[in-house]
Amino acid sequence: MEDFEVIEGNVTSPKGFLASGVFAGIKKSKKDFAIIYSEKKANAAAAFTTNKVKAAPVILDREKIANGEAQAIVANSGNANACTGQRGYEDACSMADMAAKHLNIDSGNVLVCSTGVIGVTLPMEKIAKGIELAVQSLSKDGGKEAAEAILTTDTFAKEVAVKFNIKGIEVKIGGIAKGSGMISPNMATMLSFITTDADISKSALDKALKNTVKRSYNMISVDGDMSTNDTVIMLANGVACNPTIEEGTKEYEVFYNALLYVNKYLAKQIAKDGEGATKFMEVNVVNAPTEDDAILAAKSVVNSNLVKTAIFGEDANWGRIIAAVGYSGADFSQDSVDIYLKSNKGLIKVCENGGYVPFSEDKAKEILSEKEISIIIDLNAGKYEALAWGCDLSYDYVKINGSYRT
Amino acid sequence: MEDFEVIEGNVTSPKGFLASGVFAGIKKSKKDFAIIYSEKKANAAAAFTTNKVKAAPVILDREKIANGEAQAIVANSGNANACTGQRGYEDACSMADMAAKHLNIDSGNVLVCSTGVIGVTLPMEKIAKGIELAVQSLSKDGGKEAAEAILTTDTFAKEVAVKFNIKGIEVKIGGIAKGSGMISPNMATMLSFITTDADISKSALDKALKNTVKRSYNMISVDGDMSTNDTVIMLANGVACNPTIEEGTKEYEVFYNALLYVNKYLAKQIAKDGEGATKFMEVNVVNAPTEDDAILAAKSVVNSNLVKTAIFGEDANWGRIIAAVGYSGADFSQDSVDIYLKSNKGLIKVCENGGYVPFSEDKAKEILSEKEISIIIDLNAGKYEALAWGCDLSYDYVKINGSYRT
Repeated sequence: MEDFEVIEGNVTSPKGFLASGVFAGIKKSKKDFAIIYSEKKANAAAAFTTNKVKAAPVILDREKIANGEAQAIVANSGNANACTGQRGYEDACSMADMAAKHLNIDSGNVLVCSTGVIGVTLPMEKIAKGIELAVQSLSKDGGKEAAEAILTTDTFAKEVAVKFNIKGIEVKIGGIAKGSGMISPNMATMLSFITTDADISKSALDKALKNTVKRSYNMISVDGDMSTNDTVIMLANGVACNPTIEEGTKEYEVFYNALLYVNKYLAKQIAKDGEGATKFMEVNVVNAPTEDDAILAAKSVVNSNLVKTAIFGEDANWGRIIAAVGYSGADFSQDSVDIYLKSNKGLIKVCENGGYVPFSEDKAKEILSEKEISIIIDLNAGKYEALAWGCDLSYDYVKINGSYRT
Repeated sequence: MEDFEVIEGNVTSPKGFLASGVFAGIKKSKKDFAIIYSEKKANAAAAFTTNKVKAAPVILDREKIANGEAQAIVANSGNANACTGQRGYEDACSMADMAAKHLNIDSGNVLVCSTGVIGVTLPMEKIAKGIELAVQSLSKDGGKEAAEAILTTDTFAKEVAVKFNIKGIEVKIGGIAKGSGMISPNMATMLSFITTDADISKSALDKALKNTVKRSYNMISVDGDMSTNDTVIMLANGVACNPTIEEGTKEYEVFYNALLYVNKYLAKQIAKDGEGATKFMEVNVVNAPTEDDAILAAKSVVNSNLVKTAIFGEDANWGRIIAAVGYSGADFSQDSVDIYLKSNKGLIKVCENGGYVPFSEDKAKEILSEKEISIIIDLNAGKYEALAWGCDLSYDYVKINGSYRT
């Protein structure tokens, strides 16, 4: 049994958070501007893309969040403010300054995010309009609109919330995210914003966020390409007034597990909504010698174009799976690997001791006909495991990414 | 001007080599068994897949070639003898032993290669038949048949030869290769066999092969998946009777450049024949701080699904290109990057100082409408360069790999 309960909600479920999502004209017709605002200055942690090419807001936020504090997240879709040089950096600063002025808070506590077209400078008049509208619209029910306003070509909004107790006091964590979308010329960007009313120390928050990001967003793959804008930001405003959560305590574990659920949930939603996806794929590597080996192997399989196309084709092609484990860099012995395929239609072993094992092609086909497929890889080499999530590679992926000219 | 001349030919162009390609019934109807034989024991070097899952012939050949000598290469298509355990290893040994007996040479000097279905043991009766037929058919004109017999779903045979002089004595290098093909359940395998009648020391041969493999086969990508069977083998029988080529000499440089041409030519042919390819793509990273940085950046771009689909869609999407450079691990500054697109229709700059530069969309479209596209990435950070080759990602890639059930 988990120590938390999943509830309906999002970033405005925790106490003391307001949000809004509005249309500022950056995109053609859909909502394109969001603000998440904490009534009280919050402890903050973040994880950013490791791409050496970083968008202006990523460069700015890394500076701003160094002190572990923030009060608002201001985000636009429709323009990524990436590859825009010094002008782009100044625009990101202006965007934060304008929002700070309207919110009447310190600009140092305003984080900015952008997603969309790259190489084009931000339309600052529209950004100014978005800030004005979004500040006016801030409300306790605005989390859903914020979730909608950060989408690009995602097909659905991604939101989640959980509640749990810290020393008898109820606290909540809520989140919204966007996945891989396309605007030409473009790239996919992942954004995720998490709020909590828990009181948690800066160092504990930072550790919990980094460790859960490693096991959630970093374990999903749509196409293996890494964006210039990927950002996860978490705000903890302490409004629930629980005793401050510190590392190394039972309360930290409870908080960590609840946050891990939230981040895994959002990550899986992003994978399910991958460009052109027709099937959701979970890769579970078990009995690895270390967690890092399990992570390497799972990510390699979920990233493999040949595995992705096999899943699209409902083909029990274990050779492609074991080959992807083989080039992953994970430590294992090829003669000890067992591979299983699983779905709501059942479980089947397709590889034993690294080689052929007789199995029913009909049963395999039935299992792979489902929309959600698990690939279980038993390395028989230790006690660690990892989970990774992705989607298949379909004609539509090629269509979405290969024929933007209409 | 190069120090070598390209001639019509293949592995039997150098003196003292015979070859054959025959039908042994492993595949349904096409040639599936090849032998390349040197009349004299040759110095030998090889490069194998770094996949931790290695096919039986790869495991065996690594042992056999440790002494730097070989006299024959025996290869079948239609079955990869991969993921076949101890039985597979014993079958590979038997295949070498049988061939050695028929060729009347030491089994330790017979290398074996397999490509095709994985997880299924070799049909040893057919292998025996193949050996018998192929030994009977060995001839000075057999190189072309050997090139055909190692193909899987490649659409054309890949062969090349060059001649040049070493201290006034004419020597030749010839090669054949196969690229990514598919047999269900399968994976892509690359095989390349190179012969030369040059007299070259074992250490110089090994060095020349490894350094040219790094700059040829290792720089191509069809889908980023690495096979369990990838193998490059080179035999140098010294029949030309030139003074032995040693490292660090002018003659080594001449030999190296000729071999680099041969390996680059075959590597590019493999990229052009990639599964579902409609366009050939060359990525040239220039002015990198080190060659390794240039290699990292070039491979990252040629591997990117988003770049591949953009090329398929004839879309001048420089954002995807700079993002792939960004996550490559190469050292550079994003504000110094210039990107150009080039084809027979001309050259256009699409990114300057890491950002937007005005360019004609019509001109870009015209350039990208060609079958062969160059992407030139100037890091403006040093003096090293690298070339990588690949193909676009098309509907047919998904079709070939995603719908093998007919």
